Amino acid sequence: MSSLPHFTALIEDDIQSVEALMRAPMTGDPPEMRSALELVIAAGGKRIRPSVSLLVGSMLNAPRERLITMAAAIELLHNATLVHDDLIDGALLRRGIPTLNAKWTPAATVLAGDLLFARAAKLAADTESIPAIKMFSETLIRIVGGEVEQLLINRTIHNRADYDRRIYAKTGSLFETAACTAAMISPVNEDTIQNMAAFGRAIGMAFQIIDDILDFTADENTLGKPIGSDLRQGLVTLPALLYFEENAENQLVKAFLSNNLHTENPEIETLISAIRSSIAIAAAHQEAHKLVNYGMDILKRYPASPHRQALEELSHYIVDRTF
Amino acid sequence: MSSLPHFTALIEDDIQSVEALMRAPMTGDPPEMRSALELVIAAGGKRIRPSVSLLVGSMLNAPRERLITMAAAIELLHNATLVHDDLIDGALLRRGIPTLNAKWTPAATVLAGDLLFARAAKLAADTESIPAIKMFSETLIRIVGGEVEQLLINRTIHNRADYDRRIYAKTGSLFETAACTAAMISPVNEDTIQNMAAFGRAIGMAFQIIDDILDFTADENTLGKPIGSDLRQGLVTLPALLYFEENAENQLVKAFLSNNLHTENPEIETLISAIRSSIAIAAAHQEAHKLVNYGMDILKRYPASPHRQALEELSHYIVDRTF
Repeated sequence: MSSLPHFTALIEDDIQSVEALMRAPMTGDPPEMRSALELVIAAGGKRIRPSVSLLVGSMLNAPRERLITMAAAIELLHNATLVHDDLIDGALLRRGIPTLNAKWTPAATVLAGDLLFARAAKLAADTESIPAIKMFSETLIRIVGGEVEQLLINRTIHNRADYDRRIYAKTGSLFETAACTAAMISPVNEDTIQNMAAFGRAIGMAFQIIDDILDFTADENTLGKPIGSDLRQGLVTLPALLYFEENAENQLVKAFLSNNLHTENPEIETLISAIRSSIAIAAAHQEAHKLVNYGMDILKRYPASPHRQALEELSHYIVDRTF
Repeated sequence: MSSLPHFTALIEDDIQSVEALMRAPMTGDPPEMRSALELVIAAGGKRIRPSVSLLVGSMLNAPRERLITMAAAIELLHNATLVHDDLIDGALLRRGIPTLNAKWTPAATVLAGDLLFARAAKLAADTESIPAIKMFSETLIRIVGGEVEQLLINRTIHNRADYDRRIYAKTGSLFETAACTAAMISPVNEDTIQNMAAFGRAIGMAFQIIDDILDFTADENTLGKPIGSDLRQGLVTLPALLYFEENAENQLVKAFLSNNLHTENPEIETLISAIRSSIAIAAAHQEAHKLVNYGMDILKRYPASPHRQALEELSHYIVDRTF
């Protein structure tokens, strides 16, 4: 793990404990899978989700050990979904690092993902909080449900409500669970639990909107895939959705929406460039900012503290990041 | 579901409730996956595992609703592992019925298995028994661990201890969990919980030994795959293991063990026939009977009751079945 964002300074030790717990051998764990798990966990990115857990829980005085256990469960679940996602998409790189399926057989990749799911479920159970365990398993259903929808998507039908539902399932729900379960194991009332759920959901959905914007605007080397990959796969995200609304009569838009613009068609490049340089990018950013501001309003109901401030920084980081 | 074995008469209504719960829509469930889940659940076999849960729980006065929930979780987990197993093996039939991967893409099959895992985890959480939920998640790790080992197996190394460990991971552990979690939610002491775990483990391992025997002796149409499929894949099960011990100097055995007998080699047929008609089959049966007798001894420590009798019948059915 290198170049952690600033807000993690407060929870550096806890993040190390989360990392250790994610890697810790468990009874029944096949030793043959150790290197695969290590590869996946080491490739792990910025640990935003467990940081949300740890900061919310620390702000609310959660017992440290259970909080770390829950944070590790959240991040392992996230890793598990990435392993199966990359297999399904045939993605060979993630954040510039080879995916598991780029190195291992499909069979071993399926099982590596299953093992990560199983380990995540075990850690969630270890928190011994029934509400947190229930929410965790419901989130698992929701995330897989979102993946199914994405796989079987019909590009001719989409609107903002569909998009919101999709990014909630894909990303918002796990951020929501990260924040909400941290509150569930803390000495707080139901209102605070619901507030933290709403906070997590808002910044999680903002996170996904930014990911969807970066798919159009980021550097291809950083992305590790071609610009506009989502659209090429028929996935209409917020920048495209906003562009389509403004340019409903555009011939390329009509061709795309009527399923007559295939990935192989060079005109998809023209459409991607048009979206990339349009006002839709700024408009999508605006939407992400709105969500983060809503999350900030929730945080402000709680006393100022270093952990609250770190959560604010994390939230701003989510919308300001360029990769 | 047709032709249920006799011992299920006592729990017919409960099994119907388990079936209904396995199929019940859950929040976040993708409607697009409904037909796939229906296909998997309908193909479902004899519901032996939930029968073990229901009979043990009923014998020990478990609360009915939680017991049904746990039994449904156990069977969904079993179904989930079959979906990914069949995908990994490229199996097109199971019990003569087309597998999910025979009809759906690999991507959709991966997600269907994930969804079944998620639904199983949700039902386990719904039992609200921390020990049961923990055991459930540990079993998931163990089962996936067993699959990993089976995938990466080295045919040149095997002995009885390896085999026992493998069939425990593959089958014994889920039977153990079916019986043990039923006891965990019942008004009984720790001794009874441990006894039920030992009972479930014993009949589960017997179940797998019989499966491994049937792979040599059953009718190909019933199996839905060629006789001796395990050995063809390099998987040495108890009949082969016992045959190898008795015929260590046999040239075919030596060739197999030194990895010089490949699936394409017609001599594998000769080896399979030799095992099929050898005393190793009866010897393997003997081992399964020993395990079931051990399970019977445990049951006899509890007062005679219709449910205890049904468990005895179920145990005998496990070793006497011919498919």
